[in-house]
Order: sequence, then C-alpha cells, then structure tokens
Amino acid sequence: MSWIEDPEFGPDRPFGPQTLPYGVLVTGSGPGVAVRVGRHAIPLRGIAEHLGPRLAEPVAAASLDPLLAAGRDAWRELRERLTELVTADRAPAGATLVRTDWHTVAMPFTVADFVDFYSSRHHAENVGRIFRRAAATLPENWAHLPVAYHGRAGTVCVSGTDVHRPSGQRRAAGDVNPAFGPTRRLDFEAEVGFVCGGTPTSRVRTADFADHVFGVALVNDWSARDIQLWESQPLGPFLAKSFATSLSGWITPLEALEHARVSPPEPEHPLHDYLVEDQPWGLDLRLEVRCNDTPVAGPRFEHMAWTPAQQLAHLTVGGATARPGDLFASGTVSGPEREQRGCLLELTWGGAEPITLEDGEQRTFLQDGDRVSISGTAPGPDGSVVGLGEVTGTVLAAVRR
Amino acid sequence: MSWIEDPEFGPDRPFGPQTLPYGVLVTGSGPGVAVRVGRHAIPLRGIAEHLGPRLAEPVAAASLDPLLAAGRDAWRELRERLTELVTADRAPAGATLVRTDWHTVAMPFTVADFVDFYSSRHHAENVGRIFRRAAATLPENWAHLPVAYHGRAGTVCVSGTDVHRPSGQRRAAGDVNPAFGPTRRLDFEAEVGFVCGGTPTSRVRTADFADHVFGVALVNDWSARDIQLWESQPLGPFLAKSFATSLSGWITPLEALEHARVSPPEPEHPLHDYLVEDQPWGLDLRLEVRCNDTPVAGPRFEHMAWTPAQQLAHLTVGGATARPGDLFASGTVSGPEREQRGCLLELTWGGAEPITLEDGEQRTFLQDGDRVSISGTAPGPDGSVVGLGEVTGTVLAAVRR
Repeated sequence: MSWIEDPEFGPDRPFGPQTLPYGVLVTGSGPGVAVRVGRHAIPLRGIAEHLGPRLAEPVAAASLDPLLAAGRDAWRELRERLTELVTADRAPAGATLVRTDWHTVAMPFTVADFVDFYSSRHHAENVGRIFRRAAATLPENWAHLPVAYHGRAGTVCVSGTDVHRPSGQRRAAGDVNPAFGPTRRLDFEAEVGFVCGGTPTSRVRTADFADHVFGVALVNDWSARDIQLWESQPLGPFLAKSFATSLSGWITPLEALEHARVSPPEPEHPLHDYLVEDQPWGLDLRLEVRCNDTPVAGPRFEHMAWTPAQQLAHLTVGGATARPGDLFASGTVSGPEREQRGCLLELTWGGAEPITLEDGEQRTFLQDGDRVSISGTAPGPDGSVVGLGEVTGTVLAAVRR
Repeated sequence: MSWIEDPEFGPDRPFGPQTLPYGVLVTGSGPGVAVRVGRHAIPLRGIAEHLGPRLAEPVAAASLDPLLAAGRDAWRELRERLTELVTADRAPAGATLVRTDWHTVAMPFTVADFVDFYSSRHHAENVGRIFRRAAATLPENWAHLPVAYHGRAGTVCVSGTDVHRPSGQRRAAGDVNPAFGPTRRLDFEAEVGFVCGGTPTSRVRTADFADHVFGVALVNDWSARDIQLWESQPLGPFLAKSFATSLSGWITPLEALEHARVSPPEPEHPLHDYLVEDQPWGLDLRLEVRCNDTPVAGPRFEHMAWTPAQQLAHLTVGGATARPGDLFASGTVSGPEREQRGCLLELTWGGAEPITLEDGEQRTFLQDGDRVSISGTAPGPDGSVVGLGEVTGTVLAAVRR
C-alpha cells in the first residue's frame, strides 16, 4: 500500500506506478522536473537526496534537458529508484505531492530539431486521394523508406497553449491567383512523438534505439490545409505547419512501453539492412482524439508501416546526429477504418463529409474556439494500462497584422 | 593611422574598418567573441571595459548567442564603439591582436531553426529542367511567395569542418528498386545566410527587417543529388541536405551592408501586402566559388527574386517567431549566365557537361578530397569593399556503418 493516496495512482489506472512520466511543473519555487503519480506529481528537487549523486543535477533542473543528456543508464536508475519510492509505505523525506491540475505544466524540454514522418500508409493513401486526386497510389519511395521532413522546433508548444489560426496564401479551386488571409481549413493531426537523449550519435542502428530515445509524447501537428495545398510543391509544407505543434507536457519513459512492443505490418519490399529490426519497435498505442469533448477518432499506432526505430535509423543514416532534445513524430496516425483516421482532412474527406459533434454542431475543419485533445494508452505489465500524457489546445481567432 | 598594423586592415581592403565582422575565436583562454580586423581579430573580452555596461555580458561570452539576443540598439552601439577603437591611433588598454589563421574559428552561435529558401529564379528554372525534365516552367506558387523548407539546425557546422560523403537510398534511371550507398552526386550550393536576433517576434514587417537580423554569413548547403531525387516527393528534401550545412565563421553585421542595398528584379505579379517593401532589401553581393582553388562560379545575389526582408516576412506571417539564433538562407544563388550558377548540378547540367579544374581534372560532381570555398564581397562606403567571411569545407570518404 503506497503512501500516495490518490485513486488514480493504482496499478489498474493509466498513471499508476507502471507509468511514471516526467514533466516540468511550475510551483512556488519555480519550474522543476517532476514525476507524475495519478492526478498528482512529485517535484524531484525535494527528493534529490534519495536519487543518488549522478542524478543530482538532472533532477534539480528547471527542464528535462539535463536528464535527456544524461543517457540511458541514468534514465534506468532514476526510474528504478522512483519506482521504489512511490510504492513504499512511507513518504521519503522531502517528498511533496502536488496536484497537476492546479499548477502549470510547462514545456518539458528544449526542442533541438523537429522532424515529422509520414509513416501511416492509410494516411498517405488518403491524402494522396484527397490532395492529389491520384488513384490509391503511394509516392514511389514511400514503401522503401520512412518519408519525413523537418518542421519548426521554435513553435513546438506545450499542451494547453492556445493556438491562433494562422494566415497565409491559399488559392481557391478555379482561381488563378492566391488570396491571403486566415486559413479556412485548419486541422489537427494526431501523432506520437519520440524524444531523443543520450550521446549525440549518427547512424543509430535499429538495435540501439533505446539508447537514444528517452520517451514518448503525444503530438498535435496543427495543419492549415489550404495553405499547405498551395505552398507544398516542390519543397514540402512550410507555413501550413510552422505556426504551432502541440506536445503533451508529460513524457512517458520508453521503458514503460516494453509491454506495448509489437511487430509492424509486413513490409512490401525487402528492406535495406539499416532498416531491418531484430526486435521490432512497433508499438500498440491506442489514441483517442476529442473535439470539444466529442470523441472523433481512435487511431491505433500498431497500424504504422514504419517503427520509430526505423525512423531514427533513417534520420541518422546519412550522417545527421540524434542529439538530446531532438523530437521526431510519427506523422498522422490513421488506421484502415474511418473512425481510426487521425485528422479532419481524412475524417471529412477533404471537407466533403462533415462530422457531427455531441452538441449537434457540424465540422468540416476547425472553428475558432474549438478544443482538440489527444490522449492515449498502451498495454502495461500484468494486464495494466500505461497512460500517455494528453495534449490539448484551443483555437483562437487569427491575429490581425 | 590606426594602431592596427595589418596590410589587410585598410579602408581599401575587404576586412578593413568598414566591415568588422564578428566571430568566435578559440585562444588560450578558451572560445570568445572577437571582431575581425584584416588578418587579425581582437577578442572582445579583453576590451570589455571600453564597450559599456550594457555590452559587458555579450562581449564576454563564449558565443555570439547573448549578442544576438541583445538586439539592434546594442548591435549599433557595439559597432560604433568598435569603429572608434580600431581606427584610433593607440591601442585601447587590454586589446590583443590575434592572427585568425593561427587559431580555430569556432561555430559562432547556436542555430535555433534553420530555413532554406529557393529564391533564385535561374536556379529554380534550371533545377526544374534538370530534375523534373519540365519545360522552363516554375512551380505555380514560385512567383507568388518565397518558397522555403526547414533544414536541420543540428548539422550546421562552421567553415573548415570536414564533411563526410553521406550515404542514402538512390535509384538509378531504369531501376525499379533503390540501392543504398554513398552518394554519387555530391554537390555544393552557394548561398547567403541571415542570422536572426532581437526580441522573438512573429509577423515581422519588411520595414522591420533590420530589427531582427544581426548579420550575414556565407553558406554552403551541401546536397546529395541522387538521394534528393529519390526522396523529395512529396514532402521535400531530407537526407540529401541534413548531413551538413557549412557556415562562415565570421558574421558580417547587417549595418555594414547599407551601401549594398539594391532593388530586386521587378516582380511578375502584384505582391500581397506583407511582401511589399518600401525600401527594398535586395543586396549587391558578389560571390566566388572555388573548387580545389579553381574559380568555378561567380554568382551575384542581386539576381535573387526575393529579398531577405520578404523571406523573413513570409517565414513569420503565419505566426512562427523569428528568435535569436534562427538562420535562414537564400537558396542557391544563380544568375542568368552559365558562370553565375551556384551549384554543380547547374554548372554541369546534371552531370552531362563536366567542368575542368586548373589541374586538368574534370568534375561532374564532387570527389573525396575536394575542397570547396565560397567567398564574397559587397560595395561599402566611399568606394570601399565589404568582405563576407569565407566558408570552406573538404569532402571526406563516406563512413562505413
């Protein structure tokens, strides 16, 4: 019987002792690293003395940056010690329990580079059909390598941050010249993000994935579809995605997802060696997307064609390093079923088939005031469930210049 | 008559008192901010007392990061004070003159986000013809907005850094499946980079450009053309460009380029308001590219269709902030003449027309051991010339995994 009296902190709850995600909580003494236990969190600075000398600096920091740099042995040691401390009968000296919903959960780390993949076959096929009006053909390279592009690190923001509707150039069907103004096709994309740490390394083998990935966050890669359609050829999306990317405030350690590992779908072609996995890193993560509290999608990560270990191997095979703070996201998680589609572009088929929310309102794309939340779970040990930190954001009206 | 006895430090030389670029020089006391004067540099830490209290922290730092954050008033004040000090008869107390070629010039600042534009019409047209075998048509959006994509900040490296030939997937003409291996079409791209500073701001007006740009650096955006051709659709280049981007170690203050301002070519369409400039920021910068000491190209920045002020306005118009350390580059600078083309892809027309170096060797693309240097000048006050810091790099063999 743990000293933590919180009904949400039990082995049968998503944020029980099997999960223990990390975040940055702002308390009276400023921002500090904390571990989440149910509805509460424990600031680590207060219990630093129990965590060993090697962890003294990372746990006293104002962000996860030093912990990301500390590397896998340190991550494992910290999780072991915390597991003991939170399941003990008595509170360790210095421990305080803080309600997470009464305090600000701040941006957990400094994003170094942000890369976004495109690894759901269903998403890629649907987008191809909707945007390029092509038959159900994928780009030629799609099944040979995990397609990706760099996004903007400087506008990754923490869950709870409001997002202004972006403006940009867009061209209506039939028009010759583009108009400028607020996007009329604002969308979410439900994604899973992977937070890098450890020694900066290029050419990361798939087998070494866990040495370079600290944990997992849910991501909403907000997208302006009309801006995207006009700007993206030939060099990819830019303003359509650079205004904001929301990240869950709680990062689930990769170690907590050991029981969620599954094989990805069989590849269509033999893979080049650097993409082969001995022990596959497919993950059985179940997401739920809500718009104004109406569940609108339930994407499942196990449908992704490329695993995060393959993504990281590809990202670094040319010589780019994975360094602490690098964030790479999966791309929109979409499954074969309509209700598993991870963005409105697909759910409403380019706006042609509106969805109805619980209040009776219809949506093709997002309206000002809409609130989007993405949450998720994974199988944990002994039939338990591991929670993924929620990412939410509310759309505000466009800023006038 | 200045106290600085260096034949390269005269008003008729490119690194005379009209230029005064900043960099980070590694001396016995570690890395520190320095100002270049001819072949020498003055570490600013030693003369901090002469520079005023507001500049005390930035000039004592190990990188330009604090100076970038300090903002335009501080940049102006520092340049004013330094101009007085370097043109005085007697050395200020604490000043030391250090030979730049005897010391390491380190990476000058921490790159936040890196964006690469595509603003030379000649380059875009040539690439379209070579890569997409299209007629001389530009992408539909090209003349309406400055096309750009995000690159990798973590692999921007300082001039002098060796660059390993990257490996990746590439597909030979006629093949069904891609091969994996070292690129066979390694290229340089001669570009001009703009280093952001000041208060993080979104929706930067063209008129406010100089409040948000600290200075100018030359950039070599190394590119693997075979990898690029295979991977770039539909989301843009990724591994083809993420292995290395070289940056000159000396950053020329924007203020030093006041006399280089020119009007860009007349736009083809009326521009949306946010892209209109009252006082245009086209720049008369003349670049020289050398391969193994043979001049191979002389691109001129005045041919660029979009100015850096238009680029920054576009980059931020959707809500993205420009923050200190952001770097955006112009894209390959190519002019209408063959000898003004800024990359081998264009100079050799996709490898079909080799160029001959002074030692008699021919090149289509770069070979291991090749050394590429980009230097540049701009008109200064009173007929003087302002130098741009050189960026060099040598190609090393691919790393075996």
